[in-house]
Amino acid sequence: MFESAEIGHKISKSEYEAQESTLRIQLLEIQEELKNASFPVIILIGGVDGAGKGETVNLLHEWIDPRHLETHAFGAASDEERERPEAWRFWRVLPPKGKIGILFGSWYTHPIIDRVYGKTKIADLDVALMRINSFEKELVDDGALIIKFWFHLSKQAQSDRLKALMKNPETRWRVTDVDWQHFKLYDKFRRTSEHAIRTTSTGEAPWIIVEGSDKRYRSITVGKHILNLISKRLATDNTQETKISPPPTLIENPYTILDTLDLEQSLSEEEYKRLLEKYQGRLNLLFRQAKSIGKSIILVFEGWDAAGKGGIIRRITSALDARDYQVIPIAAPTDEERSHHYLWRFWRHLPRAGRVTIFDRSWYGRVLVERVEGFASEPEWMRAYNEIVNFEQQLQDHGTLVLKFWVHIDPDEQLRRFQLRQETPYKHYKITDEDFRNRAKWNDYELAANEMIERTSTEFAPWYMVEANDKKFARIKVVKTLCDRLKKSL
Amino acid sequence: MFESAEIGHKISKSEYEAQESTLRIQLLEIQEELKNASFPVIILIGGVDGAGKGETVNLLHEWIDPRHLETHAFGAASDEERERPEAWRFWRVLPPKGKIGILFGSWYTHPIIDRVYGKTKIADLDVALMRINSFEKELVDDGALIIKFWFHLSKQAQSDRLKALMKNPETRWRVTDVDWQHFKLYDKFRRTSEHAIRTTSTGEAPWIIVEGSDKRYRSITVGKHILNLISKRLATDNTQETKISPPPTLIENPYTILDTLDLEQSLSEEEYKRLLEKYQGRLNLLFRQAKSIGKSIILVFEGWDAAGKGGIIRRITSALDARDYQVIPIAAPTDEERSHHYLWRFWRHLPRAGRVTIFDRSWYGRVLVERVEGFASEPEWMRAYNEIVNFEQQLQDHGTLVLKFWVHIDPDEQLRRFQLRQETPYKHYKITDEDFRNRAKWNDYELAANEMIERTSTEFAPWYMVEANDKKFARIKVVKTLCDRLKKSL
Repeated sequence: MFESAEIGHKISKSEYEAQESTLRIQLLEIQEELKNASFPVIILIGGVDGAGKGETVNLLHEWIDPRHLETHAFGAASDEERERPEAWRFWRVLPPKGKIGILFGSWYTHPIIDRVYGKTKIADLDVALMRINSFEKELVDDGALIIKFWFHLSKQAQSDRLKALMKNPETRWRVTDVDWQHFKLYDKFRRTSEHAIRTTSTGEAPWIIVEGSDKRYRSITVGKHILNLISKRLATDNTQETKISPPPTLIENPYTILDTLDLEQSLSEEEYKRLLEKYQGRLNLLFRQAKSIGKSIILVFEGWDAAGKGGIIRRITSALDARDYQVIPIAAPTDEERSHHYLWRFWRHLPRAGRVTIFDRSWYGRVLVERVEGFASEPEWMRAYNEIVNFEQQLQDHGTLVLKFWVHIDPDEQLRRFQLRQETPYKHYKITDEDFRNRAKWNDYELAANEMIERTSTEFAPWYMVEANDKKFARIKVVKTLCDRLKKSL
Repeated sequence: MFESAEIGHKISKSEYEAQESTLRIQLLEIQEELKNASFPVIILIGGVDGAGKGETVNLLHEWIDPRHLETHAFGAASDEERERPEAWRFWRVLPPKGKIGILFGSWYTHPIIDRVYGKTKIADLDVALMRINSFEKELVDDGALIIKFWFHLSKQAQSDRLKALMKNPETRWRVTDVDWQHFKLYDKFRRTSEHAIRTTSTGEAPWIIVEGSDKRYRSITVGKHILNLISKRLATDNTQETKISPPPTLIENPYTILDTLDLEQSLSEEEYKRLLEKYQGRLNLLFRQAKSIGKSIILVFEGWDAAGKGGIIRRITSALDARDYQVIPIAAPTDEERSHHYLWRFWRHLPRAGRVTIFDRSWYGRVLVERVEGFASEPEWMRAYNEIVNFEQQLQDHGTLVLKFWVHIDPDEQLRRFQLRQETPYKHYKITDEDFRNRAKWNDYELAANEMIERTSTEFAPWYMVEANDKKFARIKVVKTLCDRLKKSL
């Protein structure tokens, strides 16, 4: 879930300056429109210490007209606050319609910190998080726009940053003992935060994870998200009387997790054969062990057309007994499937104890093809992230092993393979005009894939990225990953 | 919460026969329309043993065309089911669009039973219930109509019924050891069910509580609710192509909790003075005790115009030090209040530790005047029940004592008092044309009040009914109730 916020996003000084001035003007314009709107904007700021939360909030106060912006930080409760239910301190500062309220800290702080320090159990955390969900739903039902930013730093980056702050006499005071204490608990904090973010990234109020290491990057990113979300919400605000200017251009697709993949990786024919034999043998053994203890396995394959999913799947199934597995290719739903909830068709194929189900494309179609082609509306695919994670959580809780692979190639490689298919008679059936049409939407699909990976990669069911420009490399990577994960889970 | 299902609802044989034939025809008609609808109907049946769940389901199979109706009962899980996540058994039987599925048992059974038998903690139950809420929300988001019936019997009625079944050789087999075992746990089952129903009575899928002691009453009630809810949902179903017949008339307001009040109760002047002095003295002492330990108190008064709320409040405040209490009269919201969530104006008046806040009308306006006058839309007031109970739960969790009084008079008494106000110069300001206009909507307000009491009377903040045709009786009842509850809570 945090993978995409650990890839070192950066913006150069010149690019920053070019973007900043436009952004500031647009923010002031949108704020002017917001004044007459029928809804408040609630911005929550949370995340890792030292990831620039404070600096960002200060910057927003420079950028936005402070007459319509209020920031409230939540430290230890005052006696006035302790004498009322916990939510009182938040209710009293909720912004009215037409205004922006920044809550620094917020209702997430206590449940997460208490859990990290072992003061509460996981069930207590879950209850607290689900109460938060109802609370936010209440606010959204009432019209509020809630924007939640989570500032993230990798463990290394956080340590570097704290050290740098310590070195400089001017910033040293900003690093407290509590910061170092939190740092020691980094891993637990990360796990707990991930759990909290996942549980509360609802369709109504999803989290936005911001990589905090580069100041320019995080400032522009936060500013643009605020601009886009307010502008989008204004467009649907019926009571809005003033003329609405067209929404500003969306954030350009930034450097993403997919961009970090090294597609040049390859294997020689010889090496491939040797490794394949080795891992298939191991896999067969592991599958039989899993079967003997009734452990079920679900494999999910997503990726570009012609990325080689089918070939990978065949290398796995050849290590299995045909009685023990099912390959479910997901194309257009049947009539019966169409008359049920979109997840129904996947629930019906869940494996029995000790069996394997391989999905060639899957429930992720909801947030990929259905999103891009408009078969699912925005509210539908937005809430699907949460529905999908819930679904996989249930599989996990039951003891099923879920592995998800994104099989990745670049557009040139895809074109090369398409042309090859056209030229090869027995592969000809695999290529249609639609495949070429889909290529035109490469950028949309890439955006959707990145967001999918960001929002559905969980500690119990992470996405595995498979560099597949070289088919041999891809097959070995998948089979090896499968062996490793399966072994760990037994 | 169960109060209104313990007042002995009955329908005579002749009335039943008259209603049944129409109802059956309407049910068949609505089912015909449902065939082409874009949504499924999911009916959940839960409740106390012996309250007629099984008989009602069998009756529905007689009434409704079985080709489009499926019932699934959930006992012990099969091995097929145990090998998948728990929800699998429910997903596999969810009805498709256009059909009705009755789930006898359902996802509520295990969480409730496990808690009653002490196998789980309250936090586990809460997690399970909130997962249920997300699951049901998913289904509703996808279009499903979920109708949840809870069959209730008072402890006495359940015992009577089990004994009667035992006596008759033909029905004896239906009473199992498990039934008697459950009966021993009646009180715990009732508490746990109430908690579960409250937590899961969402705006999307509220529970309908049905008194189970009279077979004719419960059959007609269930049938009518199904008819009304499907017909209402069909009216908003856009993809519906066939002509929609006008929805059948709504259920006539049945015998309700307000009808059970004995408004003839009164006190002599002498007795009144004696009791008032006694309880005011006691109250003063109790208030001071509460203050010394920092216990906050919130009193809520709702009821008909001219029911005497002001007079009651004055009898309470005269036992208090002016520095310790606030009376908050709730009329139209201020501009600032209007620009916030409707609960904001109440949150801001929560008392500090050891203080008392008295609300003369309250947040219940959302489900009373705002509902009846159309200031709040149906989704708004429907979800308000849950929002309000959540709000009061937070007060309870914090240790605040919440007492809610419904001050009740009948229409004749109200008219008498209105006329008196017109004739008495110093009371003249209290009466306006609007008061007379509101009288015309007596039935609507009564319906709203009954539903409010049903849906928001909780174990920690029950509604107290105050028979107020005699002002003296009403005042003493409130002051005495307050003393009793306050004493218990210290």
